[in-house]
Amino acid sequence: MSKIIRQKIAVTYDFPVAFTRNALAPDNETLAGIFPPGASGPHRLAVAVDSGVVGAFPGLMRDIEAYFTRHPVARLAAPVLTVPGGERCKADLSAYQAVLDLIFEARLCRQSYLLVVGGGAVLDAAGFAAATAHRGVRLIRMPSTALGQNDAGVGVKNAVNYFGRKNFLGSFAPPFAVVNDFALLDGLPENERRAGLAEAVKIALIKDKVFFDELFAHRAALNAFEQAPFERSIERCAELHLEHIATGGDPFEFGSSRPLDFGHWSAHAMEEATSGALGHGCAVAVGVALDSVYSRLAGLLPEADLTRILAILPDLGFAPWHPALETLDMEASIESFREHLGGRLFLSMLTGIGSRVEINDVDFGLMRRAAAMLRERFS
Amino acid sequence: MSKIIRQKIAVTYDFPVAFTRNALAPDNETLAGIFPPGASGPHRLAVAVDSGVVGAFPGLMRDIEAYFTRHPVARLAAPVLTVPGGERCKADLSAYQAVLDLIFEARLCRQSYLLVVGGGAVLDAAGFAAATAHRGVRLIRMPSTALGQNDAGVGVKNAVNYFGRKNFLGSFAPPFAVVNDFALLDGLPENERRAGLAEAVKIALIKDKVFFDELFAHRAALNAFEQAPFERSIERCAELHLEHIATGGDPFEFGSSRPLDFGHWSAHAMEEATSGALGHGCAVAVGVALDSVYSRLAGLLPEADLTRILAILPDLGFAPWHPALETLDMEASIESFREHLGGRLFLSMLTGIGSRVEINDVDFGLMRRAAAMLRERFS
Repeated sequence: MSKIIRQKIAVTYDFPVAFTRNALAPDNETLAGIFPPGASGPHRLAVAVDSGVVGAFPGLMRDIEAYFTRHPVARLAAPVLTVPGGERCKADLSAYQAVLDLIFEARLCRQSYLLVVGGGAVLDAAGFAAATAHRGVRLIRMPSTALGQNDAGVGVKNAVNYFGRKNFLGSFAPPFAVVNDFALLDGLPENERRAGLAEAVKIALIKDKVFFDELFAHRAALNAFEQAPFERSIERCAELHLEHIATGGDPFEFGSSRPLDFGHWSAHAMEEATSGALGHGCAVAVGVALDSVYSRLAGLLPEADLTRILAILPDLGFAPWHPALETLDMEASIESFREHLGGRLFLSMLTGIGSRVEINDVDFGLMRRAAAMLRERFS
Repeated sequence: MSKIIRQKIAVTYDFPVAFTRNALAPDNETLAGIFPPGASGPHRLAVAVDSGVVGAFPGLMRDIEAYFTRHPVARLAAPVLTVPGGERCKADLSAYQAVLDLIFEARLCRQSYLLVVGGGAVLDAAGFAAATAHRGVRLIRMPSTALGQNDAGVGVKNAVNYFGRKNFLGSFAPPFAVVNDFALLDGLPENERRAGLAEAVKIALIKDKVFFDELFAHRAALNAFEQAPFERSIERCAELHLEHIATGGDPFEFGSSRPLDFGHWSAHAMEEATSGALGHGCAVAVGVALDSVYSRLAGLLPEADLTRILAILPDLGFAPWHPALETLDMEASIESFREHLGGRLFLSMLTGIGSRVEINDVDFGLMRRAAAMLRERFS
């Protein structure tokens, strides 16, 4: 009665993620090296910069112009655009549209470049514009936050909020390149640098015991943001993130399992409940603590491992408990997380440091006991 | 000085493209068969329908509801949305936003379904909404035009216009499934059915001599839209299109070469110049004739092959020449086409029926002679 053709398509991406310091210094070839030789002169380039980065580095705009004068692999096809930094730039479509305007005015084509220097929110909004203008212009991300460099900025997603819902609109769109410039992190307030450590602990817990041991051994130095161990933590966390996307079998998240979201169901809910007063890093630390205790109570995680987890968090400056945990509607938060993933609930729980298992049902009695244990010990 | 990780990602897609008749008839299992067994009851489904299709098939909305009552693999999570059909639905963001509203109201997640029944423009606007809501909900396309069924509707692109530019915003997003229902074509005016034949000739010319021979042999029957050869032409054209995307090596068009756009540089320009009065199919026929004559004048295409090409077009009801060709700014049109592709110019020219070569430069003197030849013979 009907004929069916099965269409199979494979799309491959291959992009560099560079780690450097002072990427815009005249002699640093890293950024210039990303542009392939142009067939007919310099490539067209537009640049969008986070207002927060401009505030911290007032010479940045001049450095960008000077860099591409010195390295004429690409030429600025429009003045550098400043995008208001922070979550507000994702709250409506204005930043998205401003970057579309930039792309249009610079007459970028699918083989031209948009360089974005900024925090996660600016990368998200500008990245969505880059992904949808001409069905995708080439995006070079230069993340300016610890979380950007070790997590969101090396990933394959972008988004803006819509209908008041976080990340309602967006796409999966691997960048053309990522340049992580450690010098940009020097301009950050301490709490934003610390946020990177929460993601490092999280990914070590689900993926890599050796990395956790390293973080544990250097926790005092990390808490003081000593340069070498801090940069190493950024780099290794980014590497594990990249590895997960490349080898996890589901880079564009067609399924429901998302191990990288370990500890995030309650973190997201607490961030929302506190209207962002509890920052992402601090919320993730509480979420990681909660699901670690749950893993222990469920008989999955050895006591000795839990002890180390509940030791490293405070030593890195994180409170493993927060009042928002008291008022958390756990059932609704889990359901909202499931809806966000789509399909069936998958939650990662720990079976050891560096190893995990996925569960499909939550024992809410146990989860409340986990929260109570944290309050008792850390409130 | 800097460390570079190369991130390699492979994303695979595998979706069915079905050819059937009366897809919504109670006993037709094709559409129902697309939904995987639900873990927890019927899947959530929202439906958007082209106003033109509703006009031609007033019972359609009722049929859709009845179908999913009879086949409870999915349930309508919101009332069926009617989207104004034709190019106007891509002219601004209103149809895109209406479909986002639908997705939001129906509380679709990434593993829920949006079924879109309509022409290319509605599929484009609704497809862009499906691709960007939650970074992609599952899209089932049911193209209602000949071009939709044999070309655009089986592809991997969507778009809306922005800044007054055709397809400025969009994405590459393979559908979850395509159901080509031949019965929908019965409701079309003749010129819209004919448009499908232009694309069939085009793809036969660049890909498949056997298919061209078949079209040539049945040209009288095709011109009369006899059911069997017409449906066969739709199916084979779709198949060649799918094959090109799957095996052409560049499904998401990262490069500049687009053989499927044979004859399209002048077709696009003439459509724009006539504000759409010259329809896409008729414009493609002229564009194909023009580049075929150019191929001959450039010494690439044998005379006997050109003779058959210039014979089949009128026999299928197409004029191989149009006054818009007289006033065409060829240099500007080629440059606009190059900009649209991005990077270097690639144009396909014929070296025979079913075989092509790519050129990077146009001899405009020769191109003007080709246009003059067509005028002389067909004006």
